[in-house]
Amino acid sequence: MAPSETVSATQEKPISTIVIIIAMQTEALPLVNSLQLVEDKNPVFPQGVPWVRYVGSYKDLQINLIWPGKDSLFGVDSVGTVSASLVTYASFQALNPDLIINAGTAGGFKAKGANIGDVFIATDVAFHDRRIPIPVFDQYGIGARKTFSTPNLLKEFDLKSGKLSTGDSLDMSTYDEAAILANDATIKDMEGAAVAYVADLFSVPCIFLKAVTDIVDGDKPTPEEFLQNLVAVTAALDRTVIKVVDFISGKCLSEL
Amino acid sequence: MAPSETVSATQEKPISTIVIIIAMQTEALPLVNSLQLVEDKNPVFPQGVPWVRYVGSYKDLQINLIWPGKDSLFGVDSVGTVSASLVTYASFQALNPDLIINAGTAGGFKAKGANIGDVFIATDVAFHDRRIPIPVFDQYGIGARKTFSTPNLLKEFDLKSGKLSTGDSLDMSTYDEAAILANDATIKDMEGAAVAYVADLFSVPCIFLKAVTDIVDGDKPTPEEFLQNLVAVTAALDRTVIKVVDFISGKCLSEL
Repeated sequence: MAPSETVSATQEKPISTIVIIIAMQTEALPLVNSLQLVEDKNPVFPQGVPWVRYVGSYKDLQINLIWPGKDSLFGVDSVGTVSASLVTYASFQALNPDLIINAGTAGGFKAKGANIGDVFIATDVAFHDRRIPIPVFDQYGIGARKTFSTPNLLKEFDLKSGKLSTGDSLDMSTYDEAAILANDATIKDMEGAAVAYVADLFSVPCIFLKAVTDIVDGDKPTPEEFLQNLVAVTAALDRTVIKVVDFISGKCLSEL
Repeated sequence: MAPSETVSATQEKPISTIVIIIAMQTEALPLVNSLQLVEDKNPVFPQGVPWVRYVGSYKDLQINLIWPGKDSLFGVDSVGTVSASLVTYASFQALNPDLIINAGTAGGFKAKGANIGDVFIATDVAFHDRRIPIPVFDQYGIGARKTFSTPNLLKEFDLKSGKLSTGDSLDMSTYDEAAILANDATIKDMEGAAVAYVADLFSVPCIFLKAVTDIVDGDKPTPEEFLQNLVAVTAALDRTVIKVVDFISGKCLSEL
C-alpha cells in the first residue's frame, strides 16, 4: 500500500483513540473531572517517569489525558519542550492514538488580536529559542510546520486561529521577541512545537488548543498575569476541549 | 531490596553495555570507524525516527553509538535538547545500558581555563535558556544536577573538568550569558543537560565528554570558529572517548 493510501484509509476510519497532552495539573484536573477519567492503575509508562495517564471512555472515544507529572527533584509540573516531547513519544508508542490534542495555556499578542480568555487553535507551530546561525540548521532550529487542518472544526465553533511559537522560557527576551515576530505568531507557549515535532515523526495528526492567560505585549508582568488568570482561563479551555471532543466523536479525520 | 542496595549491587557488577550518544554525524563517524562498529540491521527504534544505532563488541563491552540522524524535513543533524532527550529515553528502553556517555563538541570559556581542542569531563550540568521566573519553577528550568562521579577516570587521564551549561542555541544571547555565568559553567553545549535529565529519570550513570571547538568569550564568531575546528577537534574527542572506553572495560561503576 502506498503511503498516500495509508493516510487516506486512516482518514476515513472513525476516530477511536485520542491522546490529550496537558502540561500542568491545574489545567488537566478540571478536564479529568468533566470527562470522568480515572488515573491509570496499570501504568503504560516505564518506572521512573513522573508521567500520569487519566483514561476513560467518552461516547465512542477512548480518551487518554497525559500529564507529565511533578518533577521528582523540584516538585513542580514538568513543563517545557523536553518533557512534552518525551510524553508525546511514549504516548504514541504505548497507545498508538488516531489523534493528539495538545491543550494548555499560552501568552497572547494583543497586536495580533488575542485577548485574555480566548481559546486559539494553532494553524502553524515553530520554535523561537533555538538560534543556530548556520545555513539550513537555522531553519531546523526554528522547525516551522503547518498543523493538521481542521476547517470544519474551526467553522463549527468560530474558534480564533493563529500561529503558535514555542520556547522553554515563560518570559520573553528581546531575542525571543524578534524570533516570535519572524514566526508571525499570535500565541506563545512552552510545549506546542515539541509535541508537533514528535507527532510528525509518526505522522499522527495533532490539534493545538491554547487559551490565553496573559498578554505578552501588554503592561503587566507575565508571571503575575499568568498566575492570576490561570484558573479562570483553564475553565474556558476545559469547555472548548469538551466541545472539540464532542465534535470529534463519531467522525473521521477527514471530516474535522 | 532497598534502593541503596540495588545501586550498590549494580555498582559492583562489571560494566557490560554502554550507550554513547553523539549529536552530529561528523563527530560520530570517526568513532564508528575506530571502534569498528556497524550500523544496526535490525533497528531497535520505531519506524519514523531518523535515529541511527552503530553497534559492536569492543573488548568485553557491548557498545551502542547512537546518532539522532538527519532531520527528515531539513536534512541536517538532529541537534538540540528535544532529539537528545528522545534518543536517550528510547536507548534506555531498548538497550538498558549500564552507563551512558554523551560525547560531543562544545563552546569553552577562556576566562574559566578552556582552550580549543581541550576535552572536558562535566562535573555538573544545567540549562541556561529555560527562564521560568516563578518560585521553584525557576530552579526546575535551570535543572542543575551533579553528574556521576568518576574520580579514578579523572586522575588516570588528567582530564580537565568543569561545569557544563546547555541550551538550544549555538550563539549566546545576553540572557544566556547571564544564566551561564550563574551556572558557573566552563563549557556550553546543546544537549548535555537534556541527556542528564533523562538518564536521571532511570538512575543510569552518565559521563559527559565535551571537546572545545570555539571560545565563547573570544573575538571570533562562534559559527565560523565552530565549523573551522570541528574536524580537528573531533579527532581529539575521538581519542579521548577511546581511552575512556578502554579504561571502563573490565571495571565496575564503583571503580570509575
